[in-house]
Amino acid sequence: MSQALHPPPPAQDESKFLDFYFDFISPYGYFALHQVEPLAARHGRTLRWHPFHMRAVTKDVLGMTQALADVPLKGAYVRHDVRRMARYLGVAYNPAPAASFSSVTASRIFYLIQERDPAAAARYAHAVFHSQHALAQPPNTWDQCTALATQAGVDAAALVEAEQAGRARELFRQATEDAVAQGVWGTPTFMADQEMFWGCDRIAQLDEWLQRGGW
Amino acid sequence: MSQALHPPPPAQDESKFLDFYFDFISPYGYFALHQVEPLAARHGRTLRWHPFHMRAVTKDVLGMTQALADVPLKGAYVRHDVRRMARYLGVAYNPAPAASFSSVTASRIFYLIQERDPAAAARYAHAVFHSQHALAQPPNTWDQCTALATQAGVDAAALVEAEQAGRARELFRQATEDAVAQGVWGTPTFMADQEMFWGCDRIAQLDEWLQRGGW
Repeated sequence: MSQALHPPPPAQDESKFLDFYFDFISPYGYFALHQVEPLAARHGRTLRWHPFHMRAVTKDVLGMTQALADVPLKGAYVRHDVRRMARYLGVAYNPAPAASFSSVTASRIFYLIQERDPAAAARYAHAVFHSQHALAQPPNTWDQCTALATQAGVDAAALVEAEQAGRARELFRQATEDAVAQGVWGTPTFMADQEMFWGCDRIAQLDEWLQRGGW
Repeated sequence: MSQALHPPPPAQDESKFLDFYFDFISPYGYFALHQVEPLAARHGRTLRWHPFHMRAVTKDVLGMTQALADVPLKGAYVRHDVRRMARYLGVAYNPAPAASFSSVTASRIFYLIQERDPAAAARYAHAVFHSQHALAQPPNTWDQCTALATQAGVDAAALVEAEQAGRARELFRQATEDAVAQGVWGTPTFMADQEMFWGCDRIAQLDEWLQRGGW
């Protein structure tokens, strides 16, 4: 019982953050991107970005063997819904085919940048999303991704050096593991004060949750 | 070419209807129930009710072998989300466990009633949803369902007679087939002027679609 008299040092104050989990390949993640930053600012919270490997989670954790795009009927609906949603939100949407983009390299590089400069990492995340979903230019290779990083003000030479230590792969693997440990299984997912909201169509509810302090 | 001079008789004016596809087992269908009737009325549309057999579609059409509730992480999230959504909407929510309810008999009886009296079928649909999701009394048997039908003003003796012809099973099978033929694969789904919206979280968009005539 004496332990109660000596509580552990307080953890980071979680009420100051809003967590944004996504895979760069997700169009709904791209749509969320346009809403979640102003939302975090309105509520005085710092946005924490967590790209993770959705396909690994879908396959290894959820046990789903089909890609969403290949699911009969549902795949066709989603292709229609994303275009309607983009027009609804007024967001530029001209994606490269999902099958032409692997988000792994782009995500690994995100974490290399984030270790050094979180603000630059956020700018880079915008650039990756925009390249895939608005410019139809899937950033697949190291060179394509570091070109986007350079545009975001990152020193590409420092990235090369960091990656030589094999660090990027490990950071992204760990981030995906951490997302799953938090209960995250879909993209985009938002977490505030341990409350999870899945989907860009839950952002209005998340907003109201933060406003009202839950219900 | 002469056929163009003799067009077929005009079909039913689809702009006067709003189609509501659902499975009675779906909590999101139950939540939609509370919003879709006023929505249809606001836009001067007649609501057409289409209970269908979701599990058959999930398994046979979508190729999904796991029940949603059994999907790791996602199942737990959905259980949390439905309770939060019920509180958000202010809807009474005290469901029987999904595994304790098979919606097949309730749905078959719905179609027997609808053939005779669509308004009574709508009242019966409310009663079935309410029994499962608010009273935790899953209406599984013929007697449980016809008791709800009687409350909705239906002559239960007429249902017995109709069912003896084996008609209910065929009507429900056909309704599920028709839903799939329309591209429906989830519950709830709404269709207006060939435009499909899936999910009770798309009702606001559906509302605006009807208001603006699309975008």
